[in-house]
Amino acid sequence: MSKPPHFERHFSGGEAVRDLIIGLSDGLTVPFALAAGLTSAIAASRLIVTAGLAEIAAGSIAMGLGGYLAARSDAEHYAAEQRREEEELVEKRHAERAEVASIFRHYGLSDAQIDPILENFEKNEPAWVEFMMRFELGLEQPDPGRSLRAALTIGGAYAAGGLVPLAPYFFVSSARAALPWSVACALTALFAFGWGKGLATTGQPVRSAFQTTLIGAVAAAAAYGLARLVS
Amino acid sequence: MSKPPHFERHFSGGEAVRDLIIGLSDGLTVPFALAAGLTSAIAASRLIVTAGLAEIAAGSIAMGLGGYLAARSDAEHYAAEQRREEEELVEKRHAERAEVASIFRHYGLSDAQIDPILENFEKNEPAWVEFMMRFELGLEQPDPGRSLRAALTIGGAYAAGGLVPLAPYFFVSSARAALPWSVACALTALFAFGWGKGLATTGQPVRSAFQTTLIGAVAAAAAYGLARLVS
Repeated sequence: MSKPPHFERHFSGGEAVRDLIIGLSDGLTVPFALAAGLTSAIAASRLIVTAGLAEIAAGSIAMGLGGYLAARSDAEHYAAEQRREEEELVEKRHAERAEVASIFRHYGLSDAQIDPILENFEKNEPAWVEFMMRFELGLEQPDPGRSLRAALTIGGAYAAGGLVPLAPYFFVSSARAALPWSVACALTALFAFGWGKGLATTGQPVRSAFQTTLIGAVAAAAAYGLARLVS
Repeated sequence: MSKPPHFERHFSGGEAVRDLIIGLSDGLTVPFALAAGLTSAIAASRLIVTAGLAEIAAGSIAMGLGGYLAARSDAEHYAAEQRREEEELVEKRHAERAEVASIFRHYGLSDAQIDPILENFEKNEPAWVEFMMRFELGLEQPDPGRSLRAALTIGGAYAAGGLVPLAPYFFVSSARAALPWSVACALTALFAFGWGKGLATTGQPVRSAFQTTLIGAVAAAAAYGLARLVS
């Protein structure tokens, strides 16, 4: 049997772009908001850098390993469902025939039109299994190398994004003096990232740029307010 | 036309469970790792609490609003693709017929079996559009109330998860003395969460529990090591 066609995506970014977006969305936002929040309570940039780097290490590892496990569990899920469909074809053939028929009946086909389809599947069980995987379960065969690539892309993007708003604290020893530079770096980077994300996904760069920037600003303001309240 | 059947998931958790898992995975890991990391550099629990709460505010808002936008953009994406398929049915009818034929030919159907399917779709265009949405693009109609629910579930789960490892720092004024309690709280919560996640998704609770706990431990150790190195 030929390789099954991929689900077509009109605005396709591919999985690497999706992973990059996942990592950058949080990486550009959370360490920035944490650093801004801490500036309301801590005077020395050195401590903000320590907290920021600890956050970046924690966040990139948690998100990277999380992405790794999610991709691996997608692959295992596919394999398990495939075995299950193969077993059902042996043990509950009648029910599986009824499922195929009900899919096509939903689209208005008559039983006379469905019968030859069933006969065809009877003669080609791998095609039948793959049909059930895709049309009953909505599952596509995952790419086997994806787990590691997902981990590195998500984790790397998180770390790279997190270093942008932290950079000014490396060079300016007073946290309060570094904050405006950090805000400027972060909002610029969020705007540019949102723009690119909009181009790659919805095709609406302007709206995406403003939304992404707004999320970062709201998160930073909340962290700042809360840190000020408790310190 | 009747409501289309949902893609069946054998190990179904539903969207609420998925959102809960997204929020808890990071919420139980990142604030914990940050607090543990800071303990290597900061002696006073009060500062750890400030940093932890700032992180929780930042993370829950970033992830909650991110989930809101992702769900909204799914809904808009579906509507845009649906319009596009409707237009293509008018403007490129021949190409759309060829696409349907090629989907079924992949599963071994002959042209004589495919023709009645095409005739049927000619008479029922809404069914044709939905068929293309689902079987060419792999898209299901999203639930309209999902955006807000996703935001609240993800953000709330992140905040709830983040407070667990932070709690000991509220009660023990020396950060170094609070750390073992925080580690114990976090690892216990991660283990229990991983167990539940395994039951709800892969059906392998033990492996999921150990993996989830390991991710938290690795992230915390990395944050601790890095914070110690730079402070």
